Amino acid sequence: MSTDPIIPTLADIEAAHARIADYIHRTPVYHSELLDQRCGGELHFKCENLQKVGAFKARGASNAVLGLDEAEAAAGVATHSSGNHGAALAMAAKRRGIPAHIVMPSNAPAVKKAAVAAYGATIVECEPTLPAREQTLAEVLADTGAHPVPPYDDARIIAGQGTVALELLQQVAELDLVVVPVGGGGLLAGVALAVKSINPGIEVMAVEPAGADDAFRSFGLGMRVEQTAPDTIADGLRASLGVLNFAIIQKYVDTIVTVDDSTIVDAMKLQWSRLKTVVEPSGAVSYAGVLEYPERFRGRRAGLVISGGNLDLDKLPW
Amino acid sequence: MSTDPIIPTLADIEAAHARIADYIHRTPVYHSELLDQRCGGELHFKCENLQKVGAFKARGASNAVLGLDEAEAAAGVATHSSGNHGAALAMAAKRRGIPAHIVMPSNAPAVKKAAVAAYGATIVECEPTLPAREQTLAEVLADTGAHPVPPYDDARIIAGQGTVALELLQQVAELDLVVVPVGGGGLLAGVALAVKSINPGIEVMAVEPAGADDAFRSFGLGMRVEQTAPDTIADGLRASLGVLNFAIIQKYVDTIVTVDDSTIVDAMKLQWSRLKTVVEPSGAVSYAGVLEYPERFRGRRAGLVISGGNLDLDKLPW
Repeated sequence: MSTDPIIPTLADIEAAHARIADYIHRTPVYHSELLDQRCGGELHFKCENLQKVGAFKARGASNAVLGLDEAEAAAGVATHSSGNHGAALAMAAKRRGIPAHIVMPSNAPAVKKAAVAAYGATIVECEPTLPAREQTLAEVLADTGAHPVPPYDDARIIAGQGTVALELLQQVAELDLVVVPVGGGGLLAGVALAVKSINPGIEVMAVEPAGADDAFRSFGLGMRVEQTAPDTIADGLRASLGVLNFAIIQKYVDTIVTVDDSTIVDAMKLQWSRLKTVVEPSGAVSYAGVLEYPERFRGRRAGLVISGGNLDLDKLPW
Repeated sequence: MSTDPIIPTLADIEAAHARIADYIHRTPVYHSELLDQRCGGELHFKCENLQKVGAFKARGASNAVLGLDEAEAAAGVATHSSGNHGAALAMAAKRRGIPAHIVMPSNAPAVKKAAVAAYGATIVECEPTLPAREQTLAEVLADTGAHPVPPYDDARIIAGQGTVALELLQQVAELDLVVVPVGGGGLLAGVALAVKSINPGIEVMAVEPAGADDAFRSFGLGMRVEQTAPDTIADGLRASLGVLNFAIIQKYVDTIVTVDDSTIVDAMKLQWSRLKTVVEPSGAVSYAGVLEYPERFRGRRAGLVISGGNLDLDKLPW
């Protein structure tokens, strides 16, 4: 456990990595000379779209589930989710052989419900509002005694997501900067903690959709503001930055930039066509930062996290 | 060199692999539990869509170019191509530092011309007919003294494409069968030669679009027939089977099956969504064979070649 009651340390991230290693993929790092030439730098893409359940979320959820003691785990785990965290928690619970209860809004995409159901989790439907989701989850917890696993504002989740950076820094030597998309901030906080603990000289840059820019504004203000009425195709990045996440980000992140949806779509198409890999809008946001600010990458070696690859192929944003 | 004047041997394929190793990617093998569950077998996908120029064609072209002696290479190389072979030859020539002349039909997609041009090759346009392509190539050869490198009916090309199988058999132990798409037959002939030379007990299955089924008909007839008026979305598989290719296929291939375009599209979408990898229609044909004949895969371990990933993202076939 961490020496701090809340903020995880590099030791927690390393312990998470050892705990989850047999449950997740060590994802590959992709590289394209043509994408390098476009920006005059060297870009290395950590492909968490090739992770289990198609997103880095498998890491944090696995760390949380595997870290429970027998008594805590016995009644299962629960969360509310319309997206990848629900599937990741269902997957991790199945691997441990415990029940999972996933509260999902009634308007969640059929493909997301199917993914959760495929892992044998119990789906509890609710109205598509945050209060309804939280109320329904509270009822599920009371009824079942299940252990709650939140999607990002949680030290175990942050430590799990930070394992992305442990691998990336092993896979690519002498990085100048690491670029991460930010929504709730689980991935960004974990990666920033790991990178700065290992080598404070590496720049950590966050990229956020302009239509859901609460992290950008919070970072500038020095005070956490909530995201209201997000408007972006990057559906995985619409959440408000978590409290713990913001504290870590303030301390360890160097730069936050925003990108327009049109740049996100350009980034997706370039990644699909050049890397031949399926990237969801949220996953392309890190590379969109390169398209928006190429001069920041000239002559530098960057590691960029492709956070996920789950999207409806019948509804592509172009 | 081969002991036979025409048909390459395993030694030629091994020599090709040593020759091209620094010029190509050793592509990864992907696997998905969900795709396994659908057929009740074990499917391992050799990802040549992640090869240089986005297709296995980089192997054969590199082998041909690197195998030339200095005198042969001096005046450069030439071919006619509307697709991946032209880009592959241009790439290989650039790496060796010799000129490449690519005859391209005037209706070749802009994206294909751009790929060839990006490697610094000279593009010679011609009317979009086979006689015009052959006549124009003959003129280019006469004018430049360049060395011709055909796309598939060539022992060096076949040996180069066969290196796909050398890697696959190293990467996945105890395969029961290997599944390959067939068009001109360069990939199929090379893979069949390699597989049967290493282990005659492994089944070699070819899959062909029903709308361009000359290999299927030739195989059944025991006599090579030409492909006329191909009608399939698998644009890389519309060519007629080569003469040398047919001789090798008759000897080493166990099974040929055909698949409809609708099955090819289903296969593409499943590979995109489950493997998160961008597969072109021709590249999805091997997996389409699984969708069409799942009983042939039940309880067996199969290696399937994803041959390429080049397609226009603005014109997806669904």
